[in-house]
Amino acid sequence: MSMYAVVKSRRAPGAEIKRVEIPKIGKNEVLVKVKMASICGTDVHIWDWNEWAQSRIKKIPLIFGHEFCGEVVEVGENVTSAQIGDFVSAETHIVNGTCYQCLTDRMHVCKNVEILGVDRDGVFAEYVALPALNAWKNSPDLDPALASIQEPLGNAVHAVLPKDHVEDVAGKTVAVLGCGPIGLMAIAVAKTLGAEKVFATAGGLNLTRMELAKKMGADLVLSAKEYGDKIVKVILDETDNRGVDVVLEMSGAPSALRQAFEILTPGGRVSLLGLFDKSVELDFNNAIIFKSAVVYGITGRRMFETWYQVKGLLSIKAFRDKIMQIITHKFPIREIEKGIQAIKQKQTGKVVLEPVWE
Amino acid sequence: MSMYAVVKSRRAPGAEIKRVEIPKIGKNEVLVKVKMASICGTDVHIWDWNEWAQSRIKKIPLIFGHEFCGEVVEVGENVTSAQIGDFVSAETHIVNGTCYQCLTDRMHVCKNVEILGVDRDGVFAEYVALPALNAWKNSPDLDPALASIQEPLGNAVHAVLPKDHVEDVAGKTVAVLGCGPIGLMAIAVAKTLGAEKVFATAGGLNLTRMELAKKMGADLVLSAKEYGDKIVKVILDETDNRGVDVVLEMSGAPSALRQAFEILTPGGRVSLLGLFDKSVELDFNNAIIFKSAVVYGITGRRMFETWYQVKGLLSIKAFRDKIMQIITHKFPIREIEKGIQAIKQKQTGKVVLEPVWE
Amino acid sequence: MSMYAVVKSRRAPGAEIKRVEIPKIGKNEVLVKVKMASICGTDVHIWDWNEWAQSRIKKIPLIFGHEFCGEVVEVGENVTSAQIGDFVSAETHIVNGTCYQCLTDRMHVCKNVEILGVDRDGVFAEYVALPALNAWKNSPDLDPALASIQEPLGNAVHAVLPKDHVEDVAGKTVAVLGCGPIGLMAIAVAKTLGAEKVFATAGGLNLTRMELAKKMGADLVLSAKEYGDKIVKVILDETDNRGVDVVLEMSGAPSALRQAFEILTPGGRVSLLGLFDKSVELDFNNAIIFKSAVVYGITGRRMFETWYQVKGLLSIKAFRDKIMQIITHKFPIREIEKGIQAIKQKQTGKVVLEPVWE
Amino acid sequence: MSMYAVVKSRRAPGAEIKRVEIPKIGKNEVLVKVKMASICGTDVHIWDWNEWAQSRIKKIPLIFGHEFCGEVVEVGENVTSAQIGDFVSAETHIVNGTCYQCLTDRMHVCKNVEILGVDRDGVFAEYVALPALNAWKNSPDLDPALASIQEPLGNAVHAVLPKDHVEDVAGKTVAVLGCGPIGLMAIAVAKTLGAEKVFATAGGLNLTRMELAKKMGADLVLSAKEYGDKIVKVILDETDNRGVDVVLEMSGAPSALRQAFEILTPGGRVSLLGLFDKSVELDFNNAIIFKSAVVYGITGRRMFETWYQVKGLLSIKAFRDKIMQIITHKFPIREIEKGIQAIKQKQTGKVVLEPVWE
Repeated sequence: MSMYAVVKSRRAPGAEIKRVEIPKIGKNEVLVKVKMASICGTDVHIWDWNEWAQSRIKKIPLIFGHEFCGEVVEVGENVTSAQIGDFVSAETHIVNGTCYQCLTDRMHVCKNVEILGVDRDGVFAEYVALPALNAWKNSPDLDPALASIQEPLGNAVHAVLPKDHVEDVAGKTVAVLGCGPIGLMAIAVAKTLGAEKVFATAGGLNLTRMELAKKMGADLVLSAKEYGDKIVKVILDETDNRGVDVVLEMSGAPSALRQAFEILTPGGRVSLLGLFDKSVELDFNNAIIFKSAVVYGITGRRMFETWYQVKGLLSIKAFRDKIMQIITHKFPIREIEKGIQAIKQKQTGKVVLEPVWE
Repeated sequence: MSMYAVVKSRRAPGAEIKRVEIPKIGKNEVLVKVKMASICGTDVHIWDWNEWAQSRIKKIPLIFGHEFCGEVVEVGENVTSAQIGDFVSAETHIVNGTCYQCLTDRMHVCKNVEILGVDRDGVFAEYVALPALNAWKNSPDLDPALASIQEPLGNAVHAVLPKDHVEDVAGKTVAVLGCGPIGLMAIAVAKTLGAEKVFATAGGLNLTRMELAKKMGADLVLSAKEYGDKIVKVILDETDNRGVDVVLEMSGAPSALRQAFEILTPGGRVSLLGLFDKSVELDFNNAIIFKSAVVYGITGRRMFETWYQVKGLLSIKAFRDKIMQIITHKFPIREIEKGIQAIKQKQTGKVVLEPVWE
Repeated sequence: MSMYAVVKSRRAPGAEIKRVEIPKIGKNEVLVKVKMASICGTDVHIWDWNEWAQSRIKKIPLIFGHEFCGEVVEVGENVTSAQIGDFVSAETHIVNGTCYQCLTDRMHVCKNVEILGVDRDGVFAEYVALPALNAWKNSPDLDPALASIQEPLGNAVHAVLPKDHVEDVAGKTVAVLGCGPIGLMAIAVAKTLGAEKVFATAGGLNLTRMELAKKMGADLVLSAKEYGDKIVKVILDETDNRGVDVVLEMSGAPSALRQAFEILTPGGRVSLLGLFDKSVELDFNNAIIFKSAVVYGITGRRMFETWYQVKGLLSIKAFRDKIMQIITHKFPIREIEKGIQAIKQKQTGKVVLEPVWE
Repeated sequence: MSMYAVVKSRRAPGAEIKRVEIPKIGKNEVLVKVKMASICGTDVHIWDWNEWAQSRIKKIPLIFGHEFCGEVVEVGENVTSAQIGDFVSAETHIVNGTCYQCLTDRMHVCKNVEILGVDRDGVFAEYVALPALNAWKNSPDLDPALASIQEPLGNAVHAVLPKDHVEDVAGKTVAVLGCGPIGLMAIAVAKTLGAEKVFATAGGLNLTRMELAKKMGADLVLSAKEYGDKIVKVILDETDNRGVDVVLEMSGAPSALRQAFEILTPGGRVSLLGLFDKSVELDFNNAIIFKSAVVYGITGRRMFETWYQVKGLLSIKAFRDKIMQIITHKFPIREIEKGIQAIKQKQTGKVVLEPVWE
């Protein structure tokens, strides 16, 4: 039995749509028919075959893509948690459940992790095989476009609430530095959780994203290009010189990293999610030590605390309506290249792909 | 210089409005002109001179009342944190700052605490003297009615977020047992903090409060009288038998205490705020131990973490609009007895008093 | 292939040693040859066939016993985390990994849990089958007697540290109410974690246990029989009337439950582990609410955070030496009845069983 | 009335011992007769008049020194928490109690903080004036040498336990990078709190400090000079490649900062206390983000949670005995220069000064 898939066949830019075998599932796996997929920055790197991709991708040919939703069409013999017909999305960290991290509630940094669409075949295909543990069951009436972007939405929630026991954002000030899709989502999350004020900065003069940031509920949106380091003074002024309680670094810009700590109230907390091109210099004394700052590195999502939080938030209509606006583009998957090009022009929110192959 | 005040002059029911001396302030105190006051259940007990009041009240004559807002008209010589003209409300726990609790971030259970309007003269007067530490500075444009009820609103926030490091209610299910004013406020708080679903129970067939509970955002409101112990089954059904993540006991009813644990998901948390008439029997094995439950006793508000959370929440218009609806009655303070009678009929939300004395 | 086992064959007191089939293991299981077992209070209930056992035990015939260590002699085909020759002990909560609790770091209250030696055949046998997840790998040089009692030791550690984010006992005062084996272990744990002072109470005039409590490091050991409610005054005096920071209720005595809160410092925390014969009356207002107390229900052990803590503590020689002293009796397993009788006389610490069957 | 004091009279290296006025105390202050003082690295900077001192010190003439103990000889009229004869030490952060940080349990980063011996006259004198809040009451029988070094000991405890709700070190692996006095203290603290294994690194080939590290209980002590970046491999090997749970950076060396994250287990935590000469480059992606690390900036001590922890730990004889060994030198204060020179040769633990002036 064969199916269509977007396949990285050669260690070079681009990819091809072609027919391949439908995956066989293991005893603990499910087979899912893809209903909607979404493009992540990682997918653009793989498409472009940039430096990161060249060193990270081991498996070629590879079906890439990892954000999606779909319907379970087959279940392995040991599977009890999923049934044929279930509407699911994927947690993309595939873990083996036996390492120190897995056994102490930190599965998302499992030492033996495999990433869907990076280390094994992913979701830009008609069908995908998933361990049952990774098949997150959606509410049947969740919009497929929303269902397909829960993985990055989980990143946003994880950045806002890195642990069970962080200080709440309720009634606090929050700054989101960087308005890519996850930054935009984080604004909506922080406002939905009762943040008093959310400040946002967008790189360049990105009007699309600045407008989206306002729609997400940001109280003040500043262009990083226009303001530069004046961002610090503006935000300190807006907080009566108190500083921001919770800062989310979502841009990967070295200047934003420095600003994150300069705008932080003493004793406040910072989540770092944006990836940096290289090492960054920081004045650790003033940024972190004298400030008694707490810094959280954010990778993936908590398995599965964050997923339950995402599910709960998506049950709130006003939140769904906000997040829906982040989905700015929809293409048939056969035109995936158009989606990738759109993302590279940075005027997009999320770009989703419908399973139209012919 | 004299002023009007509501004075408990005798150890008997009732109180009288009469002229007394304007209080003299100490070096660390401020004098505040009362702009709006609000009636607490405690004030009703003092008025009625019930058993609790008889054993608890030492100081007679006493000006009672502790929920209020007003304008600073005089500041003691050591005071730097307040100025004449400031619009303030009162934290009613007056602490001395030197005990073990005060020195370890638990001032609200200070061993040497005095309560405003209980242990020293309170706010049902034209003027009240307050330690500067207890004068919480409001935003100048906060509605005085809202400003006057921040003390119970703080109780509600404290019940939802008992510590810095509790599990968040974001995306979780919450049950509020008891829809008195603090219960109603707690519903609004939980929804504003992103709770997925809030279940509420109201004692009796209290239609006013059940309607208010819905206006606060409760997804399901049940009459405790009508449903009795069937509440447990209904709520378990509504959570697909999973149980509720966070339960707030706001009623002081022994049956509600038992139900609180029966509807709780294993590993969930319960805040206890409602006071019980006497000791209550509980099956600790099944209620708490086997369930790995976490229970928080809620008294007062965290000083001053909770006040900052309240301030932040009150900066959100949708939240203010909700809380405003809880204020169902307003009387001139010379008719305080009418306010107290209204509360005893349990068809009220909050009852506030305007400083009209003649 | 047959083996010896202690079998509960009839729904009546007692048990018989007889030959049964060696268990067959599933694909995710291991077969373990028992090296040492230990008797839990639960085993005494099953032997005695008391009310609890009559209603709880569904499976007859049943091989009971759940505390043990042994050597892996066979591994199922899917097992990667264990190897033949591994020296293991058992986490006795067998979970299915798919419920809400399992997916949110609360496996120990899994909704579908089965208990080893209660719901399925246990360890009072020559061989036992275990899910690989439940086979905790010991250091090869750990004394088998210590290795066999890690399950209750985990209870003790869990009571002292109920969550990742509780206030530490370092430099704090701790009270342990009840000096059964888990209470004794908890004293050693608290002292090893830097508690300033540990107070202990022993039921009756149990000199064996009072002496053991001192050996574990308790700074003051009081007989509950001799002191009665005077325990409260004595302990308050010893803390300069401040009260105890952390109280561990290990006795299941209603009087101890009340005392637990009376000796607690305002804002302190209580862990409840001892099971009560029936419902208990408590003055919730003064015990919990006005005191801003935090109460943790303790059941099982955190999977597997607690196991790692136990492993770390057992790597400390001084700690091992203390815990070793709690093992007061050793019998060949064919004389299990003697062990059970010894426990019922309450002059024991832990009673362990060697695999001598003939 | 005059007294001897060590006075920085000119903005230049050195200081002079001379007679000055005994300080007058304010109404909320106490006057303390110095019994023992201790030299901090900060005092060496002030003596040397290095770049930091030149820009930081505003007040000249200045009596410097801030680590000490002594006897209360006079109390201001408003003081209730101290009495003549009390044996006290100083919390050196003098706060005003009204800022956002003070009102939310983060006094140690008060926005209006003044440092004793830096911003106002300190303890290298016969008498010192202190706000009553900053006069920490010692146990009367605490050794004065130990009593005088509680401020840095508090830094060490704060680094190990940065918040109420960090993951415990009990049964965990800990690495202390840098064996200056605070690093040495941190080793003793971690072991006393039940750490399974403590790894320590000492800069250079500092045999004195490496020996002290072993005496503090370190399981493995490595010379940073000898091992260089091989430290990472050695420590990973020692943890079966799992990595260290808790890393304390106490050296201020950029290489140690990088190593701190390289030896950290995914999801582990790092405390940063050592100050860096300038900005440091770090690969934030791999060090913090992908590792899901939590980083705490450590400044001062929690007021007064940490002081209670220190008090509790100092009540444990074995802990006192360890810490006592860190005090390697004692000079009469008139020979303070010898003490400062000794510290600069880096073969010291703590250097204390006796009040011998003539």
